[in-house]
Amino acid sequence: MYPVITISREFGSGGHSIGEKVAAKLGIPFYDGEIVTRVAEESGYAKELIEEQGEYSTSANKWFDISAASAMYFQSPQDEIFIAQKRVILDCAAKGPCVIVGRCADYILRKEDVKCLNVFIHSDMEHRTERVLKRYGEIKNVGIEKRLAKKDKQRKTYYKYYTDQQWGNYHNYDVALDSGELGEETCVHIICELYNKK
Amino acid sequence: MYPVITISREFGSGGHSIGEKVAAKLGIPFYDGEIVTRVAEESGYAKELIEEQGEYSTSANKWFDISAASAMYFQSPQDEIFIAQKRVILDCAAKGPCVIVGRCADYILRKEDVKCLNVFIHSDMEHRTERVLKRYGEIKNVGIEKRLAKKDKQRKTYYKYYTDQQWGNYHNYDVALDSGELGEETCVHIICELYNKK
Repeated sequence: MYPVITISREFGSGGHSIGEKVAAKLGIPFYDGEIVTRVAEESGYAKELIEEQGEYSTSANKWFDISAASAMYFQSPQDEIFIAQKRVILDCAAKGPCVIVGRCADYILRKEDVKCLNVFIHSDMEHRTERVLKRYGEIKNVGIEKRLAKKDKQRKTYYKYYTDQQWGNYHNYDVALDSGELGEETCVHIICELYNKK
Repeated sequence: MYPVITISREFGSGGHSIGEKVAAKLGIPFYDGEIVTRVAEESGYAKELIEEQGEYSTSANKWFDISAASAMYFQSPQDEIFIAQKRVILDCAAKGPCVIVGRCADYILRKEDVKCLNVFIHSDMEHRTERVLKRYGEIKNVGIEKRLAKKDKQRKTYYKYYTDQQWGNYHNYDVALDSGELGEETCVHIICELYNKK
């Protein structure tokens, strides 16, 4: 049995919702928002900042521009959040089977030799657009495709920075599923099957 | 129901064998070697050449270096093989449900609006090495990792040339599975489940 299921996902692909349903079906904890709460407690940073900087490289975050040399002398808030997040993720995994969404959990747990079922959820633009508009609504003067592309880019950059791996690259996942094509319920079913197979 | 299952795969990942088992389990035709035979009949080229040039860009194949301008005036053997292969693949798909391995079938059928379940099979170096050595044996003076990397590169280049898409990129597949981690039988099971779900 896999102790932990990690879910990485494209923005708007329904990965969060799929993870939640998988956890409910398997009767194991689901960690997403709770990680943010615990990192906030541990680090002292505000939840909003952790939500923003715990998975995304943002334009407000200039730390990515700092040279390796100068970065040796201090930790950026993003680094501190990453480290606190890592501790919380390892702690969650140590407690037993669970589902963890995003936050480089696949990489963090692999590095620590925690056996995981690593899942990647993606979808076509049409399904993602529909889901994001339904969930978050429109943003004035910002096209939906641009919003999706920006979020993906921020996740990619964040993942690359902390793992030196390519986000979405098949080598990093045991299974990758197209939630738009297959449907959310089928994705939930397949992940649960794989979890129970081992 | 999906009319066609296409399987793209890393060299040594067991994709061929998984496809064969899926077809047997579902009771539908499996096309791999048969495509080569039919392309040989149609094009007049030798089977060995088709096997080599029907999926790989090889160093012997200088056609990839030809500029677009000069390529307008004649077709290379590889282009002729690609076109014959495309015809055979479309013909196979038109006959009804089947499994087709490799040869840009996912792209060719998508372009023709044939609904497919597009699968990508990959695996870690350890499992691939074991499988390739067992199946094909060693080659004197050529390390196994180098052989695997070369084959993958040739498939990537071939796919890129004819589809202008990135081979292995998650956008092109409904499901990607790590056969080394999940095991061959589980991959067969999951693909059959997805096929029957639709």
